[in-house]
Order: sequence, then C-alpha cells, then structure tokens
Amino acid sequence: MRRTKKERQEHLQETIQANPFVTDEELAGQFHVSVQTIRLDRMELSIPELRERIKYVAERNMDDEVRSLPIEEVIGDIIDIELDKSAISIFDVKKEHVFRRNGIARGHHLFAQANSLAVAVINDEMALTRKADIQFTRSVREGERIVAKAKVIRTEKLQTIVKVSSFVGSELVFRGEFSMFRAQLPDKEGQDEIGN
Amino acid sequence: MRRTKKERQEHLQETIQANPFVTDEELAGQFHVSVQTIRLDRMELSIPELRERIKYVAERNMDDEVRSLPIEEVIGDIIDIELDKSAISIFDVKKEHVFRRNGIARGHHLFAQANSLAVAVINDEMALTRKADIQFTRSVREGERIVAKAKVIRTEKLQTIVKVSSFVGSELVFRGEFSMFRAQLPDKEGQDEIGN
Repeated sequence: MRRTKKERQEHLQETIQANPFVTDEELAGQFHVSVQTIRLDRMELSIPELRERIKYVAERNMDDEVRSLPIEEVIGDIIDIELDKSAISIFDVKKEHVFRRNGIARGHHLFAQANSLAVAVINDEMALTRKADIQFTRSVREGERIVAKAKVIRTEKLQTIVKVSSFVGSELVFRGEFSMFRAQLPDKEGQDEIGN
Repeated sequence: MRRTKKERQEHLQETIQANPFVTDEELAGQFHVSVQTIRLDRMELSIPELRERIKYVAERNMDDEVRSLPIEEVIGDIIDIELDKSAISIFDVKKEHVFRRNGIARGHHLFAQANSLAVAVINDEMALTRKADIQFTRSVREGERIVAKAKVIRTEKLQTIVKVSSFVGSELVFRGEFSMFRAQLPDKEGQDEIGN
C-alpha cells in the first residue's frame, strides 16, 4: 500500500521519535522509498541527521550521571542511563575493530562496550568486574552499529549482577551476565534485598 | 645465608634460563641484592636485558606458527605456541590500560589478551569465539606484566574449548574458559574424539 507523502512524513516522524538511532538506510527500507527521499523528508520536517541526533543525546550531561568512571573511559557512547537500573550505549564498528582477514568484529570490542556499560550503570564511586559469562550470538561486521542494553538484575551484599544484551538492528549479537563489586550498598531497593 | 658472587651468578644464570621473563626487580628481591647488582651480574654474564630477551623470543618466527590470525592482531606478545595444544603470551600494563581513577587495569584488556591467545592457539584458518566464562581474581596495576597461558582442553565437532590462566608473578589474576568455533576438524587427536 503506497502512502501519500503526508502520511509517510507523519509516520517517519513517529518512527524517529520512537527510535532516534534509526539510520536513513533503515528508514528507506522500511518505507520502501530511496535514501534520498528520506533525507528530503527529514529536511522538510527539520529532523537533524542521525549523527546530530546521537550527539545531542550523548551530550545530555551523561557525565554528571555516571559515577563509577569518567565518561571518556566508557567504550561506546552512552545514550541513556538510570543508575543502578539500566543503561544503553551505542558503538560503531569501524575498520580498526575487525579482523583484517574476514572483516568480523573482534570479540574484545563487544566485550569492552558491554563491560564498561556494566561499570557505568553502577551507582558507586567504585565498580570492578568480578566475573562474566558471555556469549557471542552473531558475527558483527564493519559498518554495523551495536546497541548495548544493560539491566541491573540484583544486588547482594557488595555484589551487583548486570545483564547486558547487545543488538545490531533487532538481532542479538552478544549477551553477558556481569558480576560487579562495588564499594557501597545501594541506597534503596538494594538494601531491602540485603535483608533477605 | 649469603652466597658468594660466583654462586649468585651461577644461580642467576639458571634462574633466567628457567624463566626468561623474570624482571631485574624480581631477581633482586629473590637474591636479596640491589637491582644495580643484578644489572652488573647480567653484564658480566652477557645476559641481555629483559626487553631484549622478550624481543628475541617473540621474533622467533611466531608468525609462521599462528594460523588463525596475523601475528600483529594478537593482543600481547606470543612467546610460545604449540597449535591445538598450548600457548603463552605476555602483556605489559601501561598507563593507557588502567582506569584513570584508581590505576587498576581495565578488564577488557585482560580479556583481549586471553581471547586473542585462545584464537591464536587454534590450528585453523578460522577461529571465532562463541562464548566465555571468565573471572577476574586479583586487580592488576600499571607497570605489571601479565603472563597468559592457554591450554586446549578438548575439541568436539567444530568446537574447541580453551582454558586461559593469566598471572602476575605467581598470582592468578584472570581465568577464562573459551568456547571457540573453527572451520575444520583438527588433524589427529581431535578427530578421534569426534568418534565418541
């Protein structure tokens, strides 16, 4: 079913609002139009290009929100964080991140993104990784964007379990469960749990 | 018991032969003499400094021996390898590898050393990490040298299990079990196992 331009633009605006990190290429595929059409639509709607949208979100004072390490030490760009709850970061796989021979992203970069997100989500001056169980579920290639989502599962004593799932588009490429040491007990829910 | 200089130098020579990667500082501690004394002993005995000893071992055509990736892509210096059996690499923790705030080495560097050693030990054109269970057992600091030892445990179908233990001196700092995908069955023992 072919949409009118107005319908398409309305739908486009909603789509980008729901997922600010969608690329023009992905939108073109989704709307069955050319990338050029998407760009023109965005211009008419005054929606900045993806890079600008990311920059805007990434600069939203994440530095004040991360406690366990300076923001520059996070691998990838944090785009959303709620301490001791959840966090999201994106990482663009470039030439220097892949095996020269087969163009597949090296595991330690996916690990680094996920691990530093697991550190960043901890609401403490100190967070150290104690152990991790990880799985690489699909090879990632140069040019792909990895979106990592961290979720704090529970805190027991001074140990917090963080699950991280990383996606390219809708495909799971990595998942890991990180067991993190922290210096202090969390303020609220965490302490209740300690009483168990 | 204080040794004569001759006794000390004999013992020193044996010690370095047994472990070419021992530092002058470690030797000084072990022999209860100053680092300067160790240096003079080495000069008299014509034993090159540690850096040269490592370079010598590392240049011993490891490139011909590693199949799964170009040697430059290995994180750390491989100093010994027997394909599909075992491998050893060393990694010097420098300023850029530690958290600025506490000087502790970031986990993904230890992971990268261990993971790339697990890739390198595979006797196949292709080796990809499928999953890993890892543990950080002691914090590593700037200036420390990590010696990682990989051991191939078993191969089942196209999956090889590699255990990596990393040490600073005699202390275990990291251990991991890596499950690796490979393109082909190994030549010998591996294939027998497949028959099970």
